[in-house]
Amino acid sequence: MKALLVVAHGSRREASNEEVRKLCRHVEKQAAGEEFFLVRAGFLELAEPSITEGISQCIQAGADQVVVLPYFLSAGRHVSEDIPAKVKKAEQQHPQASIVLAPYLGAAAGVSRLLLELATGGEKNGYSAE
Amino acid sequence: MKALLVVAHGSRREASNEEVRKLCRHVEKQAAGEEFFLVRAGFLELAEPSITEGISQCIQAGADQVVVLPYFLSAGRHVSEDIPAKVKKAEQQHPQASIVLAPYLGAAAGVSRLLLELATGGEKNGYSAE
Repeated sequence: MKALLVVAHGSRREASNEEVRKLCRHVEKQAAGEEFFLVRAGFLELAEPSITEGISQCIQAGADQVVVLPYFLSAGRHVSEDIPAKVKKAEQQHPQASIVLAPYLGAAAGVSRLLLELATGGEKNGYSAE
Repeated sequence: MKALLVVAHGSRREASNEEVRKLCRHVEKQAAGEEFFLVRAGFLELAEPSITEGISQCIQAGADQVVVLPYFLSAGRHVSEDIPAKVKKAEQQHPQASIVLAPYLGAAAGVSRLLLELATGGEKNGYSAE
């Protein structure tokens, strides 16, 4: 039973946190019956649940593996140090579960394809600043 | 002649800025001979070129249309106000060119698909925090 925890930075602007939670609900629908039975958001700071709480919630819901995916665009300190440290702590708290750190979003080869798709639809979907 | 300006926030950590520039070079290769003859990075703050400089450089390089794509994950003030304001300013500076604002990255329907791809490859490509 695998769960996915999408980890964002967290924002003082609650709408931004909610945007991540909404994305997770969408990903969960896409993943239904496939790889992940549960897709949740976790936050490094400023929003709930924290990464460790989010991992615990996934395990309490029945996950024996939690994939933690940093929803970040660049490999700064949060991605290279802070999130791995939280994952390590969670591993010590839950020795019976497997906790795996996936690559961060910005590292995905598909990002450039996605940018081109967005940019190419720009005339149709975009808006002028006028 | 269309150019694409991928606009990131900009970071004090120069490696993060360089990561965006490298992504743009990759997107440019993917776009070669297709939609965009030029793909450049621009930054809202803390890095060069600025958005207005980036747009000017695209136009100087021969673009008659510049698509500005916010490389942001959430629709905060930067996406909803700051970047449109810079684009509007550039439109006034370059009335002969068309400057189009594309949706920001986090708005892309493909993001959830990309997260699932990354998470599913997590066991193979990911790393344990151990």
